[in-house]
Amino acid sequence: MLALDLIIKKRNGGKLTREEIEYFVDRYTKGEIPDYQASAFLMAVFFNGMDTDETLWLTEAMLHSGDIVDLSCIPGVKVDKHSTGGVGDKTTLVIAPVVASYGVPVAKMSGRGLGHTGGTIDKLESIPGFRTSLSREEFVANVKEIGIAVAGQTDNLVPADKKLYALRDVTGTVENISLIAASIMSKKLASGSDAIVLDVKVGSGAFMKTIAEAEKLAGLMVDIGRGAGKKTVALITDMDRPLGNKIGNAMEVCEAVDILSGKGPCDLKEVCVELAANMLFVAGKGDIEYCRSLAAEAIEKRTALNKLTEMVIRQGGDPKVIEDTSKLPKARYKAEWKAETAGYIEKMHAEKLGYASLILGAGRKSKEDIIDHSAGIELLKKPADKVEQGETLAILHTSDENRIPGALAILKTAVSTGPDPVPKPPLVLGRIE
Amino acid sequence: MLALDLIIKKRNGGKLTREEIEYFVDRYTKGEIPDYQASAFLMAVFFNGMDTDETLWLTEAMLHSGDIVDLSCIPGVKVDKHSTGGVGDKTTLVIAPVVASYGVPVAKMSGRGLGHTGGTIDKLESIPGFRTSLSREEFVANVKEIGIAVAGQTDNLVPADKKLYALRDVTGTVENISLIAASIMSKKLASGSDAIVLDVKVGSGAFMKTIAEAEKLAGLMVDIGRGAGKKTVALITDMDRPLGNKIGNAMEVCEAVDILSGKGPCDLKEVCVELAANMLFVAGKGDIEYCRSLAAEAIEKRTALNKLTEMVIRQGGDPKVIEDTSKLPKARYKAEWKAETAGYIEKMHAEKLGYASLILGAGRKSKEDIIDHSAGIELLKKPADKVEQGETLAILHTSDENRIPGALAILKTAVSTGPDPVPKPPLVLGRIE
Repeated sequence: MLALDLIIKKRNGGKLTREEIEYFVDRYTKGEIPDYQASAFLMAVFFNGMDTDETLWLTEAMLHSGDIVDLSCIPGVKVDKHSTGGVGDKTTLVIAPVVASYGVPVAKMSGRGLGHTGGTIDKLESIPGFRTSLSREEFVANVKEIGIAVAGQTDNLVPADKKLYALRDVTGTVENISLIAASIMSKKLASGSDAIVLDVKVGSGAFMKTIAEAEKLAGLMVDIGRGAGKKTVALITDMDRPLGNKIGNAMEVCEAVDILSGKGPCDLKEVCVELAANMLFVAGKGDIEYCRSLAAEAIEKRTALNKLTEMVIRQGGDPKVIEDTSKLPKARYKAEWKAETAGYIEKMHAEKLGYASLILGAGRKSKEDIIDHSAGIELLKKPADKVEQGETLAILHTSDENRIPGALAILKTAVSTGPDPVPKPPLVLGRIE
Repeated sequence: MLALDLIIKKRNGGKLTREEIEYFVDRYTKGEIPDYQASAFLMAVFFNGMDTDETLWLTEAMLHSGDIVDLSCIPGVKVDKHSTGGVGDKTTLVIAPVVASYGVPVAKMSGRGLGHTGGTIDKLESIPGFRTSLSREEFVANVKEIGIAVAGQTDNLVPADKKLYALRDVTGTVENISLIAASIMSKKLASGSDAIVLDVKVGSGAFMKTIAEAEKLAGLMVDIGRGAGKKTVALITDMDRPLGNKIGNAMEVCEAVDILSGKGPCDLKEVCVELAANMLFVAGKGDIEYCRSLAAEAIEKRTALNKLTEMVIRQGGDPKVIEDTSKLPKARYKAEWKAETAGYIEKMHAEKLGYASLILGAGRKSKEDIIDHSAGIELLKKPADKVEQGETLAILHTSDENRIPGALAILKTAVSTGPDPVPKPPLVLGRIE
């Protein structure tokens, strides 16, 4: 078998065999197929696609490129969750404790964010002392003993994805549904859980811009999950607006704690309950309606908040910041973003809000950048709200005063208002089982 | 400007600007754009193509990546010729002397062959003593003094093409008409001639398999030539059958000398006269009909043979082999390829004949392979000929007896015969001016 033959086969629209895909992934991961052949192959996949079989084989080949976490010593149906990422998406911080509070083991490995805001790991690291680098043994032990652990992905989990993703990022081959699905699902399968809930975001602040694209990706990932013998459900949720009111690492921890304390914004709560309900559902806790009531109850009764505190303590974090979120890192400088025109907010461009947060210090432009955990944006107004001219739309937080004008310049183009009341579109747009 | 942006622009079907193409070629040639981005770019070009403007800009950017031969000190219209390559194509050895015999300067830089049989340079090197590595000064001086030089391409001629071609070869991005046209034309333009005749081969032994493809490539190259201010004509000629009766380096020199001596196979002579006539035409020697008569006359009167001898002497070769071609290198072993069934030869698959020659030692599989100048195939029968069962179709020549069974095995699948007489299709299938 020759890499060149596989490139030409895919270029000519052929369907690759399982053996061919395994050969490609194995040799590329080992460095025996050079980057320049891999990138030509990926571009051919971009144009000619992969069918469900090929995508499943690609996922499995990537999965087997490294270690697979063995959670078999933990009783029960272990449940994992993945979000395709969006602006202000702090749902993991809420739903993992909700689900774990019912004795459903949650062993969540998360990535660091590269882009607008930090990933779950970055958010958790805004809690003083919180350790996200756990050894495999410690990670498994935590799940076994307290039913929950959230940690950074270890080095040898899906090395094929690390290499392929880095290459796709610089060769214009990111935006292919099979490559996206295989990247996500290989990591989910390597994390060792028995059931998976996927949150596919759609809208201006998400990777998938249309519902049709999101449904396609969700369907493909559910097929892969099922093909690999895991119970898998995908929700399609709105990311045309930012989720919740806070964007930025410490600020998002604060908002997650608010939700678990029975407070916080309704949109975030609604999505969290729906996601947690589906995790409880795939864990076999009952029908979806019953699971929704369980999720709501864990919030009302604060059992989920207690579970979060337990996890924070176990992972070395200071539990006082959960009791009193005002103890989380706070930014030195604040600035107001004011409405230029009166009216109903028709749109707040989520991606631009995310980019403004990045400018303020909440995200990373490159892997080496250090995150300012205190930086971010606190929205006082959201789409469909009515505003007066000069009214404050949001408060900007940053440790570097010089970043404020740049962030405000972006925000200026991020909002549009109109004279007529604006309907609030639904947050959960679809479900694929 | 970022390479990634250019990849994505082309991937999304955009038209690149001249500046963008210059940036890509310049930075890639300098090693500032890595191979893995270049190969993704080339694959995007494979799928989305380039229009005539982009192809001209690409050609010019490649042309300016290295030296351009300055022939301005030589009076007259310097004429160059290029063939897209085929099995048994020894036309350069015939037509360069024909044209030069009329005082039209021919400064021909040729590549070595990678594939079935050697290139013109390899063929000439079968003449004992013949030097194909000439310094730039010697090359220009020869053209100035005797009106003809055929030499290997110097190192710094179109380095962008060397790098791009090597990459295309291993990334499945060879077969794109714009990339092919830019590769050929950048080298023709860098060789410094004023007018160009292109021989685009079509058929089973050529790169272009259909007349439509060949016409498209020919038209694009003529557009590029004209866009660069050179008088350019393209012929489309048949390569469904091998050209002439001999395949292999020394054997092809022998056949070329036969043609220049008024002997040799009619098909080869017809194509040579047509190509030489067009070279004389673009040099301004008269209308095409008159130029045909000139070409035929140079052969009849042996003035072209004398010019070949003059060039051989000037480039250090032994002129005795031109007088007596039996002095050319001869293979130690011969074998006969015999007809398995009687009938009219419907088809002789040119590419398979070429591959069998390569097996016998006439070509290179990789750059490092050493050519056996004496190896090759001498056809005794050609398509449309009638054969009896067991009659000899061809004689195989090689220095390595062990190669004969492999070559015969390929030849077995290269011929088909039928009960009915077969028409001879025309050799010159089109002309684009």
